[in-house]
Amino acid sequence: MALTQTQTDEIQALRSQTQPTYRDISEGLEEVLYQAFPVLDHGFVRVIDYMGNDSAIVQAARVSYGKGTKKRTEDRGLIQYLLRHSHTTPFEMCEIKFHVKLPIFVARQWIRHRTANVNEYSARYSILDKEFYIPSANHLAVQSSTNRQGRGETLSPEYSHYVMDLLREDADRSYSHYEELLNEDAEGNSVDPQKDCLARELARMNLSLNFYTQWYWKINLHNLMHFLALRADAHAQYEIRVYAEIMLDLLERWVPFTHEAFIQYRKEGVHFSKNGLSALKKLLRGDKITQDESGMSKREWQEFSETLDLPL
Amino acid sequence: MALTQTQTDEIQALRSQTQPTYRDISEGLEEVLYQAFPVLDHGFVRVIDYMGNDSAIVQAARVSYGKGTKKRTEDRGLIQYLLRHSHTTPFEMCEIKFHVKLPIFVARQWIRHRTANVNEYSARYSILDKEFYIPSANHLAVQSSTNRQGRGETLSPEYSHYVMDLLREDADRSYSHYEELLNEDAEGNSVDPQKDCLARELARMNLSLNFYTQWYWKINLHNLMHFLALRADAHAQYEIRVYAEIMLDLLERWVPFTHEAFIQYRKEGVHFSKNGLSALKKLLRGDKITQDESGMSKREWQEFSETLDLPL
Amino acid sequence: MALTQTQTDEIQALRSQTQPTYRDISEGLEEVLYQAFPVLDHGFVRVIDYMGNDSAIVQAARVSYGKGTKKRTEDRGLIQYLLRHSHTTPFEMCEIKFHVKLPIFVARQWIRHRTANVNEYSARYSILDKEFYIPSANHLAVQSSTNRQGRGETLSPEYSHYVMDLLREDADRSYSHYEELLNEDAEGNSVDPQKDCLARELARMNLSLNFYTQWYWKINLHNLMHFLALRADAHAQYEIRVYAEIMLDLLERWVPFTHEAFIQYRKEGVHFSKNGLSALKKLLRGDKITQDESGMSKREWQEFSETLDLPL
Amino acid sequence: MALTQTQTDEIQALRSQTQPTYRDISEGLEEVLYQAFPVLDHGFVRVIDYMGNDSAIVQAARVSYGKGTKKRTEDRGLIQYLLRHSHTTPFEMCEIKFHVKLPIFVARQWIRHRTANVNEYSARYSILDKEFYIPSANHLAVQSSTNRQGRGETLSPEYSHYVMDLLREDADRSYSHYEELLNEDAEGNSVDPQKDCLARELARMNLSLNFYTQWYWKINLHNLMHFLALRADAHAQYEIRVYAEIMLDLLERWVPFTHEAFIQYRKEGVHFSKNGLSALKKLLRGDKITQDESGMSKREWQEFSETLDLPL
Repeated sequence: MALTQTQTDEIQALRSQTQPTYRDISEGLEEVLYQAFPVLDHGFVRVIDYMGNDSAIVQAARVSYGKGTKKRTEDRGLIQYLLRHSHTTPFEMCEIKFHVKLPIFVARQWIRHRTANVNEYSARYSILDKEFYIPSANHLAVQSSTNRQGRGETLSPEYSHYVMDLLREDADRSYSHYEELLNEDAEGNSVDPQKDCLARELARMNLSLNFYTQWYWKINLHNLMHFLALRADAHAQYEIRVYAEIMLDLLERWVPFTHEAFIQYRKEGVHFSKNGLSALKKLLRGDKITQDESGMSKREWQEFSETLDLPL
Repeated sequence: MALTQTQTDEIQALRSQTQPTYRDISEGLEEVLYQAFPVLDHGFVRVIDYMGNDSAIVQAARVSYGKGTKKRTEDRGLIQYLLRHSHTTPFEMCEIKFHVKLPIFVARQWIRHRTANVNEYSARYSILDKEFYIPSANHLAVQSSTNRQGRGETLSPEYSHYVMDLLREDADRSYSHYEELLNEDAEGNSVDPQKDCLARELARMNLSLNFYTQWYWKINLHNLMHFLALRADAHAQYEIRVYAEIMLDLLERWVPFTHEAFIQYRKEGVHFSKNGLSALKKLLRGDKITQDESGMSKREWQEFSETLDLPL
Repeated sequence: MALTQTQTDEIQALRSQTQPTYRDISEGLEEVLYQAFPVLDHGFVRVIDYMGNDSAIVQAARVSYGKGTKKRTEDRGLIQYLLRHSHTTPFEMCEIKFHVKLPIFVARQWIRHRTANVNEYSARYSILDKEFYIPSANHLAVQSSTNRQGRGETLSPEYSHYVMDLLREDADRSYSHYEELLNEDAEGNSVDPQKDCLARELARMNLSLNFYTQWYWKINLHNLMHFLALRADAHAQYEIRVYAEIMLDLLERWVPFTHEAFIQYRKEGVHFSKNGLSALKKLLRGDKITQDESGMSKREWQEFSETLDLPL
Repeated sequence: MALTQTQTDEIQALRSQTQPTYRDISEGLEEVLYQAFPVLDHGFVRVIDYMGNDSAIVQAARVSYGKGTKKRTEDRGLIQYLLRHSHTTPFEMCEIKFHVKLPIFVARQWIRHRTANVNEYSARYSILDKEFYIPSANHLAVQSSTNRQGRGETLSPEYSHYVMDLLREDADRSYSHYEELLNEDAEGNSVDPQKDCLARELARMNLSLNFYTQWYWKINLHNLMHFLALRADAHAQYEIRVYAEIMLDLLERWVPFTHEAFIQYRKEGVHFSKNGLSALKKLLRGDKITQDESGMSKREWQEFSETLDLPL
């Protein structure tokens, strides 16, 4: 992450003074508001604004005239109850707004979560900076042989350097051609007045998918948890998972009771099918059961065994 | 509107002290946060929380690191530009949460706006208060003869009193039967221990559609403007329009530039069809045009003439 | 359910002849298209239109040029895989449209599922029929003592008749006052020309929540399964559950593989929390565990034991 | 567009026979179902499935038991009325599913329309074909000097050839490096068994934004018209507009009355602000008005004059 001095100053200015508000606040989030948390080689996540906290969930669940809160232990219990029973609407009453800088191929995965609001930096309107993602050696890995959409072992050090160099050279060349085609300096004047300036909306097509874009992204707490459940998961691509993990930490700062319940009931919870439940009951009664008898497919049976640490 | 003393105290408690925040605030909205604005005979609108202000729109449109704001006049101009050209996404970056008390038949219209978050007081879980809407004499009107979904002249004073009495008696009787069926006192004990207490989820079906319900309702600024464009309009039913009108005042407090642009480009703006535009051009050239030549239907032609104060 | 002769004829006309289409069809659903399945005392569910079938899910998952289908067993396996791993987007590629007649208090629960399209019969525009829901004796039950939003034992036969009579009288009276206020006959003329006709949008407020309304309701297959998971569940109110159960049968006709997977992985599946999973592993190793050691609340512990038929 | 023989055969197979259905059909759309309409150099649009037609809109607006249709002229009039008065819900009752092949930078604009369902070909899971977009000479243009997100004059023939060559070389090189990194043949075996096969989810980042992707995209008629109003507009980027224009033709085939009303009231309709309406009234009375008196900004005044062909 390389914030310019101007950007750092702007962020500093926002953190230099508070204003009084009648709204409820989240102390944990106030501490880091506007700050850029680095992700990958040039990316970041910043919280720009938020609405609500753990109390707001309780308040909404009770359709309350005042704070909604009774005792802190009761609030915690209610939040756990709501999440355990998928009573999701009170969580929709909290909202958070992020500023994220991320590679375009990550942005393409991210945007598939439709229940959020987005303002993206426009390469039709403005010029993209020369910033692209090059994976570090320990994240360059071979195609997984067992999972069509996953990675296996990391590359050898030598080969990974070869790959990094190749990616870097291609991105460098793309960008210099992009600049050549734009033929524009920072003030919007032609670099070479004898040459045409290709329209920005056309020139951008020469950039590769590892270039960085950025956006404002706003989402409610319920939908954020859905995003995190999918993207902070071990099956998510590493390059989006690192963003989700930072956001999971920010979730803990923002709504600690909700974060706790989310880990307990969603992130670290497990789901069993009808057949899985039958098999479980048999095993708990001390009976034996084979994959065949279980009605599960081979793959489901394997997942079942692994989830339960069973030597099946 | 009849807030109980407890409710008034709770609201007062929330307004008794501020907290410091790094977030940007809306001064106009802070002044009235939590306060109940009365609507109809027992309803109200309260703003419970909000996120963002006019600057946040500018900030999102610019995907800015800092405030986004340049000069106030530039902000105003940008907001007008965005609204005029239907660039709606920056307006989605602001959010507001209301607490509303409203008759059930109004709630049924209101909920058709799906792009909002809702937590409603549950008559399956709790007992509804004895509060129902009786229109005042000057809002009791006959079926419109020209608009199948509208009202015409108000009733005569005598007949309107007859109607009010009839509505009141039916609602009174409904509620006392509801109470009889519930057979529960405020502590949840049987009033008559010899009798069964009918399940709340069943007893409620005896109440009429003018009984009041309440909910927390959260919506982003773009969708709020869409709601207001439809519901603060002369064609909306009076009983929902009065809510929308209060919310339009709250919009002005919250985001004054956006409110100004909304009035200018949406609420008081007009739309002409392809045929309407052709007719306009002819008229501006000083030509005459008849309905028949215009290609418009009789009804569209009439609306066209009225919009333009034309003696056609 | 009482369809008029005209309505029955209209339905019959629609089922009297087929047309050729290049689209794929669902044989099971074609057999019952347009037919009204009775629900409660006057309600019904009809399928009006649909798009897609099990093959369409496979086709979308493969972004296929042709049918997408390979062998039927492979299609079945892929659908199970998709549902087991919450790959929900291919299920969004199928759509179904229902015509439903239902009591207003049921419609109020139903509409909270926002991700559907709705056209409701307008009591602002038209006059509601005299049809209201009266629960039968075996569905009139006391308030549950353990579940604030549930029912317990049914009422005694005598008391249930008292309750039914009371509900019926109130609804009858509501409706005759509604008619009196409208003062309109079937042709839209005044019944009593000396009297005003109150606007329909006002008169309707006197009706109680057990009156029937009707709507067209269109939803995609993914969102339909979410609706059914919540509303065909034992915790749903009986009066909405009966609709969901009919729709579950229609799901089986429409997309038999998806229905099978839905029952296996969603409807009859179970979820365990992080603590629940730890407890399970201990039990499977033959260890003992108490509620206290489990980290679960009393209520969660009880649910855990019941799910697994454990004598804890 | 280059469909392989297999793909052409698959499409042909789907068009080789019809099945009988009780559903209503759209004759115009049946004629072209599954066929690929070419767009740009390698892209296409195909309609894969649809639900509803003009009659279905009428049927939903009337919450009808049968066809809903009265006379064709009445249907046409009702559809015009609904669209003119923004009664949008009946249009949501029709649905269409497209298969689209499009450059990634176009897909990034397109996906911002969130109210649709999408299944995209996954470059995490599969290998992208060597197909990329190179603009033809008559669509290579300079940056507009008046519109920051637009194009001006086309490039000179010589320079446009230089640009095309440069784009083609970069894309060619990107793809051969992509292939080198994947090190996979069509059967999924290593091309060079001595070398690692980089994970697909990583290798793809080297491709540029003009490579083609494809997806299934399903949307309801109301949201489709919103998409077309924005993307078949003169301000839309050429590369997305050509897709929208094909889809506008398909709209006409599918729902001819709706298409007619859409052109009349939306696409070729105009909007005037409050100030614009005041100015119009003055002009129609024969008064003069200057920009200054109008309250409009310079830019709005200019748009106003151009819309009305006024020599202001």
